[in-house]
Amino acid sequence: MNAVLLLWLALPLRAEPLASWNDGELKRSLVSFVNGATTPGSPSFVPTAERVAVFDFDGTISVEAPVYGQVMYCVWRLERDKAKFPAERIDPLLDRIHSMPPDRLNDLSYPETEDLWGMGLSGPSGDAVRRDVREWFKTELHPTLKRPREELFYEPMREVINWLTAKGFRVFIVTGSMQDFVRSISEERLGVPRENVIGSDGERSFAEEPPNAVERKPKFREMVDKGVKVLEIDRRIGRRPLVGFGNSDGDVAMLSYVAGGDRPGWAAFVHHDDAEREFAYDRGSDVGALDRGLDVAAKRGLHVISMKGDWKRLFR
Amino acid sequence: MNAVLLLWLALPLRAEPLASWNDGELKRSLVSFVNGATTPGSPSFVPTAERVAVFDFDGTISVEAPVYGQVMYCVWRLERDKAKFPAERIDPLLDRIHSMPPDRLNDLSYPETEDLWGMGLSGPSGDAVRRDVREWFKTELHPTLKRPREELFYEPMREVINWLTAKGFRVFIVTGSMQDFVRSISEERLGVPRENVIGSDGERSFAEEPPNAVERKPKFREMVDKGVKVLEIDRRIGRRPLVGFGNSDGDVAMLSYVAGGDRPGWAAFVHHDDAEREFAYDRGSDVGALDRGLDVAAKRGLHVISMKGDWKRLFR
Repeated sequence: MNAVLLLWLALPLRAEPLASWNDGELKRSLVSFVNGATTPGSPSFVPTAERVAVFDFDGTISVEAPVYGQVMYCVWRLERDKAKFPAERIDPLLDRIHSMPPDRLNDLSYPETEDLWGMGLSGPSGDAVRRDVREWFKTELHPTLKRPREELFYEPMREVINWLTAKGFRVFIVTGSMQDFVRSISEERLGVPRENVIGSDGERSFAEEPPNAVERKPKFREMVDKGVKVLEIDRRIGRRPLVGFGNSDGDVAMLSYVAGGDRPGWAAFVHHDDAEREFAYDRGSDVGALDRGLDVAAKRGLHVISMKGDWKRLFR
Repeated sequence: MNAVLLLWLALPLRAEPLASWNDGELKRSLVSFVNGATTPGSPSFVPTAERVAVFDFDGTISVEAPVYGQVMYCVWRLERDKAKFPAERIDPLLDRIHSMPPDRLNDLSYPETEDLWGMGLSGPSGDAVRRDVREWFKTELHPTLKRPREELFYEPMREVINWLTAKGFRVFIVTGSMQDFVRSISEERLGVPRENVIGSDGERSFAEEPPNAVERKPKFREMVDKGVKVLEIDRRIGRRPLVGFGNSDGDVAMLSYVAGGDRPGWAAFVHHDDAEREFAYDRGSDVGALDRGLDVAAKRGLHVISMKGDWKRLFR
């Protein structure tokens, strides 16, 4: 076997890395930006150390309608483990949830959401919590699409993640969902290392004595959304990302940060405009509202991906 | 060029990756653990995804005596930029500092330290702050060793970092110093990516309008020491590290976490016992005190590295 053959074998096997994308202006813009940044000698070449890409999760990588996956997971988990929590805390919350139409759970107030997430992602260790979430992704059917949750990641976005990784990017997920929720599937299903998942979080505790594990307390700590996404990117990655994807007003700050500064960046909203294959929503939606984002996109050089027009297929 | 030659060229050029370590029990234990974890087919083999190593910074990678580098940096910076801070805040602090013997600055109270760090690492952006720190590392001579700070990283630890990286580990620095302080030199001098530096931190702010930068406010936020090191490892890495190095009681929790749990880990304290080549201190020291660590080491299976006995040379 000679060196050329060896190199060829090391290349990704699929000749077309973005096969689920329609050829069009959007795809050409992305490919041209990334090729410019990664081709030595190109005037817009960017050294590997600076190649960072950030992706929102709900609605950008994963189906978020009609109700955020994590909300549905927490309800499932709290119903299963009801007895493990103080009745005076969990009963009123479950009563309230059962009083709502199942597709209106996004109407929970912010304090109710914090309580739901804090309890829902609590447990004796990260491993224990992620094991439960993993099980849910495998077995829970989406209420209208009728497929297991783990099959409802957008194939075009998985292709972008793989392609950017192959191009020397470190890919991060920056999400309003809890870290353990996304980390439960990020490595196996998305090829994103656990430490590259930045998200909302609960309180933890650690004792040096056995089991010497980091417990997840049933108490919410911080929501990573809007401007906080930028603060956490800076705190945990430490550099301005070169490429970014989001889908809602919660991502306006992050995408503006990617596209801003004194060197070019490429950022885009995924626009849910495909009622036939998935859902159509933007302004005024109670899940993943995209309103101010549509207003500022053109002015700030943020792209808008049409799921209907730009994506050949949504799921594998 | 054939494939075998190509593979051979891809191997690290130096045959002995830990050349600055004396052959002895300590080195043999480390090498045997890491080889066991990284050799396919070995009974203690660990998949690449789970190979995480954590290093404390001050006193473990970098000289910390007689006064923590970051404290000296902050004094240098605040004296230079005195006019940029409110006089009623900075004058009493600098007066207090000037009233102390220069080698006793570790006696600053905790609130004074917070104030010093908060102001000392503030600035209009992370880039601006790190540029100043980088300059200091290049130009500031250590008060007694008389070498620039950037030359005072322990060569044996740099070798371990490089070796573990070559063995498929992701190496993280987990430090009580501020993130920007360590990030200013981590990539260039230590080969540790900026996002792999976890440390103490100040408040930030972000506005979408130009300059669209993440400002460092002159306000301290969180000290990453003792048990908080473990919480931040879990929050930001999301798995128990396999290998860990520290040097003080601030690292007891972290090293106990590395060595604990239900799978083997390897962890060690660097013991400063070399008054001739560096400094000798442990119990009762005002910098990097190692007291409880020496008491619990044997019981918890934590190794103790003798700088005098285990290291052939300290600096390059």
